[in-house]
Amino acid sequence: MMKDRRILAIEEAVLAKNDQMAARNREEFKRRGIFVMNVVSSPGSGKTAFLARTLADLAGEIPTGVIVGDLATDNDARRLEGKGARVLQITTDGYCHLEANMIAAACDQMGLDGLKLLIVENVGNLVCPSTHDLGEDVRVALLSVTEGEDKPLKYPVLFKTCHVAVVSKMDLAEAVEFDREAALANLHGVAPQAQVFEVSAKTGLGMGAWYDFLRGRV
Amino acid sequence: MMKDRRILAIEEAVLAKNDQMAARNREEFKRRGIFVMNVVSSPGSGKTAFLARTLADLAGEIPTGVIVGDLATDNDARRLEGKGARVLQITTDGYCHLEANMIAAACDQMGLDGLKLLIVENVGNLVCPSTHDLGEDVRVALLSVTEGEDKPLKYPVLFKTCHVAVVSKMDLAEAVEFDREAALANLHGVAPQAQVFEVSAKTGLGMGAWYDFLRGRV
Repeated sequence: MMKDRRILAIEEAVLAKNDQMAARNREEFKRRGIFVMNVVSSPGSGKTAFLARTLADLAGEIPTGVIVGDLATDNDARRLEGKGARVLQITTDGYCHLEANMIAAACDQMGLDGLKLLIVENVGNLVCPSTHDLGEDVRVALLSVTEGEDKPLKYPVLFKTCHVAVVSKMDLAEAVEFDREAALANLHGVAPQAQVFEVSAKTGLGMGAWYDFLRGRV
Repeated sequence: MMKDRRILAIEEAVLAKNDQMAARNREEFKRRGIFVMNVVSSPGSGKTAFLARTLADLAGEIPTGVIVGDLATDNDARRLEGKGARVLQITTDGYCHLEANMIAAACDQMGLDGLKLLIVENVGNLVCPSTHDLGEDVRVALLSVTEGEDKPLKYPVLFKTCHVAVVSKMDLAEAVEFDREAALANLHGVAPQAQVFEVSAKTGLGMGAWYDFLRGRV
């Protein structure tokens, strides 16, 4: 009702094209033996802090590339540099999510030779990235304790399609009166398929289990 | 490059149509003497808590209606009920922002008679609502201290077009090591036009200045 029918028809075609390109990416990643993650969350959930700590702690252990998407600025790429990983910033100039062809172009530019792990940090948005496959092996949804326990219920598309859910900023759980049981119940209800990690990039809490998961998959 | 040209052309037409409908909404609100706010932020920035406290504290003083947009659930409407305001939930079924025609339909359903203030709580998204005028007098951008000081730089479209910026969850400023000076400098840099309020809906900090602003505008 709300959306113009012509747009819907063309969007379906464009999504189909994106799926094709994602399948091509996936094939290339598989051929090269690279494990690929697409990390999605709200703005400010702590994606960059989580990834910065991961890169620092695994530096020298797993050859890693990171593609970072933002509407504007290269702040996030700069935060991730100097930790032994190849880092490339995509600035989408107002575009609200990454698409498979952007990833293909970024991979060409960055070069995939020698990588074992490729991390895509998507644009901060709980809605639009959910419908765009990038060719990843694993979609990681981040949810910080400051955001409220009902986010999986209110943004179901992302949580239904994620393989991993990371509850971030656990160091703030007490300060925000985080209701852990309610949050996990909502998460398991919407995303029973998802493996859940509870972490704090600040204190390091729970990061060990996350690294073991990565080591097991790479 | 990234976006299909046919979609761009049709989107422009749809945006123009939205602008027309927004102008019609604005005219109707003006005719009725209703002050209208469009509240936009990331998921989990505290829009609902901020509005719940506002409704409770101003109950009986300003006849208020609230239209709440979410992808799924009526959780937010339920949190806002019982505080003396008329509340209507729009469930967008995956759609990532509200549009002017949705607001017109919601107003018909809710009824505007007797209202002095209409608050629209948009879908949690820092990107897509920025380009859709709803017919509001004032666009309010919420930014919580937990999200990081550089959000205005990374999501410039919203902050450039807002009239009011509310820094929320100030009670958590210390726990998250919020750099107030950096955040305000970024805010003033991107949004020099915006009136800024620093608040905590939990402790009530700064809410008085916000109510004075509302009283002045209604």
